[in-house]
Amino acid sequence: MDTSILSEKINRTLSTLRYGESPTELYEPIRYIMSLGGKRIRPLLVLLAAKLYDEDVEKALLPAAAVEVFHNFTLMHDDIMDKAPLRRGQQTVHEKWNSNIAILAGDVMLVRAYQLLLGVAPDKLQKVLELFSKTAAEVCEGQQLDMNFEQREQVSIQEYIQMITLKTAVLLGFSLELGAVLQGAPDTDAEHLQQFGNNVGIAFQLRDDLLDVYGDKDKFGKQIGGDILSDKKTFLMLTALEQASPKQLETIVSWRNKTEDATAEEKVKEVTAVYDQLGIRQQTEQEIDNYFQKALQHLDAVQVPKEAKVTIRTLAMQLMEREA
Amino acid sequence: MDTSILSEKINRTLSTLRYGESPTELYEPIRYIMSLGGKRIRPLLVLLAAKLYDEDVEKALLPAAAVEVFHNFTLMHDDIMDKAPLRRGQQTVHEKWNSNIAILAGDVMLVRAYQLLLGVAPDKLQKVLELFSKTAAEVCEGQQLDMNFEQREQVSIQEYIQMITLKTAVLLGFSLELGAVLQGAPDTDAEHLQQFGNNVGIAFQLRDDLLDVYGDKDKFGKQIGGDILSDKKTFLMLTALEQASPKQLETIVSWRNKTEDATAEEKVKEVTAVYDQLGIRQQTEQEIDNYFQKALQHLDAVQVPKEAKVTIRTLAMQLMEREA
Repeated sequence: MDTSILSEKINRTLSTLRYGESPTELYEPIRYIMSLGGKRIRPLLVLLAAKLYDEDVEKALLPAAAVEVFHNFTLMHDDIMDKAPLRRGQQTVHEKWNSNIAILAGDVMLVRAYQLLLGVAPDKLQKVLELFSKTAAEVCEGQQLDMNFEQREQVSIQEYIQMITLKTAVLLGFSLELGAVLQGAPDTDAEHLQQFGNNVGIAFQLRDDLLDVYGDKDKFGKQIGGDILSDKKTFLMLTALEQASPKQLETIVSWRNKTEDATAEEKVKEVTAVYDQLGIRQQTEQEIDNYFQKALQHLDAVQVPKEAKVTIRTLAMQLMEREA
Repeated sequence: MDTSILSEKINRTLSTLRYGESPTELYEPIRYIMSLGGKRIRPLLVLLAAKLYDEDVEKALLPAAAVEVFHNFTLMHDDIMDKAPLRRGQQTVHEKWNSNIAILAGDVMLVRAYQLLLGVAPDKLQKVLELFSKTAAEVCEGQQLDMNFEQREQVSIQEYIQMITLKTAVLLGFSLELGAVLQGAPDTDAEHLQQFGNNVGIAFQLRDDLLDVYGDKDKFGKQIGGDILSDKKTFLMLTALEQASPKQLETIVSWRNKTEDATAEEKVKEVTAVYDQLGIRQQTEQEIDNYFQKALQHLDAVQVPKEAKVTIRTLAMQLMEREA
């Protein structure tokens, strides 16, 4: 099945959303961030999961939009915390307006996300909101862990996986679960879909870490080695730190806190050389594959005909093979 | 009726709430702000309204707690925006930790407020969450207007009333409405109680403006004239600006942006003198009484025996006569 029809439905739904009018300072930033686009993967996952149980996905459209609004709320607040100047190549909200406006507009977006879920069938409302709230709190926990890890010397790989699970993966898992629950899928199916999404999400984030170092510069869209330059504790870096010889460790540590432009190229080159010596690329690819295989096992366990699951499987594979 | 039994129920309920454990950086600030106390007026209003329809208020306890958690979420985020160093005489969360933590802990509090409402009877859940979400967005709008007004030269009294309605009054109105809705009160009653709360809320905020200038220093707890010193556009100031003679206007304007400690006493004295000449105190008291009378009309219209409403009426009068 072609996902472009679903994507079009999502874009049409998002374009009809009304966030509010007055005061303009509060609502213009919401329209702005929602207009910056993005792949709209989360609402697509909602609809794809919904479609497994009912061809008619109309009643999943507003809930799908809710997930996208929630996701953009987290981006708006994360960008303040990370002092990010750009989002999808455009000024972030706190840069274009200011931090106070970004805090408050984000708060309203979280409320609007809940409101978009209130149209769910009454017999499913409580369950949907419980799952959503649990996920929302977990995403915040993930962001807090991410900030904590920046300040810490030592982070284990297990802790790192826990962080990206909360910060990124659980929302993908929730998206799929939501689509299933809305259409009255069996609980076990909904849970397998959620686990599928979680594992794809972890693999997706590891792929992100990998592309930062080993991506194709022309396709990646961002500077290669950005994570190395900013001393980010990615899966690659944490694995290297665990396995490095004293000499390799010295090389990595000697580059810490050196973020000057003048030595940027050399820093990326030398740290990448250590990665190469340790086979970090292959290890990361292996880890991505492990999570992806785990994801597929959960998808296989979902009790719908195999043919019906082809689109979701294909999308997941595309996410794994993406180069940007 | 004595409200202390209800207050005790509220405090007991609040003390049993569990916000989360890990990461500590996220949850400790929530426990901290909730431990700072406060009058807990909003949950008390929920229970008092609930009691009008059913002596048993047990099922209103968690929803009442939700309103208090929501209120403290707004305080946590407002304090960042207002760069407030103190809250209830203690360090604010962004001062004690940092702004990022205050943003994120606030976000989780908003989620927790929703979660506390999810136990509501299924047939009332959607309505309760719609009312709550509408109110939550309005409170954000009020905060945005408040920030806008700080930057603006001219603010009309009507705009000011609109701002305090959104920022302060609607949550009091919602608290009462919530209590009524939870116990299956007729819609007209719920709406009258909401209007009662709105009008009490406006009167309450105007009383706050009044106490800042004409309060008893020993009882008020804050510095007298704080609003004058910080050039805050209160009801008193806006009324004075509308009615001032050219000479009085000159006096007020000449003090703008002068916030030095050395001239603080003189500034408060001179601006207060203009207020005195214009009879601003009496006019504000008159306005407070107008809103309070309007509130009482709505309370009178609530279709329960008059005796049952005595406690709510008494509480409202105490709020009006408070000196701190």
